[in-house]
Amino acid sequence: MSGLLKSWVESANSAETQFPLNNLPYGVFSMYDEEPRCGVAIGDMILDVAYLEEEGVISIDDEPVLDLPFWNEVMETGPENWSALRARLTEILAEGGDDVLSSDSEMRARALLPMKDATLHLPLVVSEYTDFYAGMQHAKNMGAILRGSPDLPANWLHIPIGYNGRASSVVVSGTEIHRPLGQTKAPDADIPSFGPTKRLDIELEMGAIVGTTTALGQPVTVDQADAMIFGYVLLNDWSARDIQGWEYQPLGPFQGKAFGTTISPWIVTAEALEAFRKPTPPREKELLPYLTENKPGLYDISLQVDMQPEGAAKPTTICQTNYARMYYSAAQQLCHHAVCGCAMNAGDLLGSGTISGSNRDEYGSLMELSWAGKEPISLDTGETRTFIEDGDTLTLRGHARGDGFTIGFGECTGKILPAINFPPKT
Amino acid sequence: MSGLLKSWVESANSAETQFPLNNLPYGVFSMYDEEPRCGVAIGDMILDVAYLEEEGVISIDDEPVLDLPFWNEVMETGPENWSALRARLTEILAEGGDDVLSSDSEMRARALLPMKDATLHLPLVVSEYTDFYAGMQHAKNMGAILRGSPDLPANWLHIPIGYNGRASSVVVSGTEIHRPLGQTKAPDADIPSFGPTKRLDIELEMGAIVGTTTALGQPVTVDQADAMIFGYVLLNDWSARDIQGWEYQPLGPFQGKAFGTTISPWIVTAEALEAFRKPTPPREKELLPYLTENKPGLYDISLQVDMQPEGAAKPTTICQTNYARMYYSAAQQLCHHAVCGCAMNAGDLLGSGTISGSNRDEYGSLMELSWAGKEPISLDTGETRTFIEDGDTLTLRGHARGDGFTIGFGECTGKILPAINFPPKT
Repeated sequence: MSGLLKSWVESANSAETQFPLNNLPYGVFSMYDEEPRCGVAIGDMILDVAYLEEEGVISIDDEPVLDLPFWNEVMETGPENWSALRARLTEILAEGGDDVLSSDSEMRARALLPMKDATLHLPLVVSEYTDFYAGMQHAKNMGAILRGSPDLPANWLHIPIGYNGRASSVVVSGTEIHRPLGQTKAPDADIPSFGPTKRLDIELEMGAIVGTTTALGQPVTVDQADAMIFGYVLLNDWSARDIQGWEYQPLGPFQGKAFGTTISPWIVTAEALEAFRKPTPPREKELLPYLTENKPGLYDISLQVDMQPEGAAKPTTICQTNYARMYYSAAQQLCHHAVCGCAMNAGDLLGSGTISGSNRDEYGSLMELSWAGKEPISLDTGETRTFIEDGDTLTLRGHARGDGFTIGFGECTGKILPAINFPPKT
Repeated sequence: MSGLLKSWVESANSAETQFPLNNLPYGVFSMYDEEPRCGVAIGDMILDVAYLEEEGVISIDDEPVLDLPFWNEVMETGPENWSALRARLTEILAEGGDDVLSSDSEMRARALLPMKDATLHLPLVVSEYTDFYAGMQHAKNMGAILRGSPDLPANWLHIPIGYNGRASSVVVSGTEIHRPLGQTKAPDADIPSFGPTKRLDIELEMGAIVGTTTALGQPVTVDQADAMIFGYVLLNDWSARDIQGWEYQPLGPFQGKAFGTTISPWIVTAEALEAFRKPTPPREKELLPYLTENKPGLYDISLQVDMQPEGAAKPTTICQTNYARMYYSAAQQLCHHAVCGCAMNAGDLLGSGTISGSNRDEYGSLMELSWAGKEPISLDTGETRTFIEDGDTLTLRGHARGDGFTIGFGECTGKILPAINFPPKT
């Protein structure tokens, strides 16, 4: 694994930054009252690539695609252009590279903007959102909690099980989420009731972003699927366990998952993660040939979840695990997703499924961490938690650590607000 | 119920037409190599409303919204504009109405185009697709077939159960569908296998099109939901029963439903259907107040399914039922969909769920009609069918019958092509 790529942007060479030249993640930002547009994180700055495109310093497929509040147009120019863009960005930001920017102080001042002053927006238009269930420990835990047995469902070792989520629920990190309302039924109740969820939870996930469009009726191989993935984000699939528990038989999660799904503001490209590839764990049962991988499909990405009650001075880390714990890769998931002929679109978001390691402190949801609320977890404030309370802020972080550098996604954070009043009083 | 509204377009007054002046459904069409644009069906003609907008004969919210290959922009102008457009169309097409078109032969020739020469396209951009499970007879039948008991799931009488479908699978009537590939497991097999589905099926449904956008975190009442519905289409939720059966536990249908969903080319507006409102059947259990309807939420729409094998001279009608058989209305479904705060968008498509009446010949799927393949149905050709064979064409039709007129949706048809070869031989 190569070491830190040095940039003339000083802060990108710091041991603390998530955004060295090795990373170059893609986001959408705005400064003050300007229009949101595409930007690239470098150290503590954002490179205004829309401006550089306008100036002719960057060009993708001879079309303007960066002066937009989403990266979907870039995705649609295809993988060769994705690589060319990354190469060009590396060239103009590298120490000793093309000095078009480093030597021009006026252009530099226009193009490099302080991230702390920027507002970050959703980096893509989410075409459709699919969520998977590909973490084995999570599946065993949920089976034990919900169905009384840690045995995996009969299909689990053969299929990367997924379900369609709700794209309109996807928001950028920092968006506050109202505690959702819904229908629930206590085990000992005769009839269901309506009100705010009492079991509000997170799910620690990675999201893979599909960058290539396929036609209806056209399956793809695992290798093709791997090449279709534009990049990855952190993803928190907020879940209302009591709503989910009452609704999910027989057609799966619906309203228990549709009130908010938070992603990190930065898309880390598949190319930036290439050096961190890790194989999926050994198969417990042989996969059907269409799902067999020819190269390591996961990545070595350390993940953690922090919880901070309203007014607490600092957060408590409640989970630490790694993306490489998953049983299925995003490429396998995408292959299975398209195998019936399902058309895929640039901007489709594939949630990995909850990432839980084998130890209790590696569990990626409060449902597992508090074992369905029966074993409260302790916070550094002295408080305990089973599920999320109003005012709590939950933050996901992820890092791929190289030799002398770290690649990150920025924070994936959200604060829970009280439920709204509904139905309105008339 | 008022009678036929007479138009100066002769064919719109025929007893045979699905498109009298009372209907005025919205589609997207193209003539020869022209660009697709918005059109309105009247008798055997299409009114080129994009042209009339350009000529200033029609104006919606002072913005050009009809010279587009979808009706979403019209939806986004809001319900008052929906009504105003319909009123204006009625005015210029009515016998004795505004003669701007009827008196100008040149404009008339440009604006009224023969439907038989037009290509019909998907009438909207489907933002997201949700499918419900709101037919009681269907739920009982599926329970009996799949789970060995006709007892409804515990939540069924309390929740209009739904799941998120795949918007990219939605195609316009006439689109041919390849038999999907997928993973299945025979009950007596040790391991699953991969290949074309052997249990290809239809689901007879209506689709409600949401016309109004809501913000994340904002629930709506049933009354608000009713006012948000722009119109209805016929919907065939093609299903691969063997793929579905193996994959659907615990997270619901996924690849068994993602290879094609056919809708009719014409959106019949909620306003056109107003005269055909029918209440949902009596409740078997009291609903929670948020789901209670203040007005009849279903419509009296006769439905039928025709099946025509390759080369057969004519189709066999295999099912006749009525949309008013459903237990939950689209307004109730939409209310429940948004109640957790799920953002809804103009162009969201809500499948009603399979519509099955209480008699065998009213069942809306082959799974039910052939009772999971055990009791083949007979076609007029002398052939029998359990599930769909390659070359079969399946057609849904729907009609609301008034006093001296009939409102229809056009055909919702699709032919099944053989599975493609996958993985490709290398």
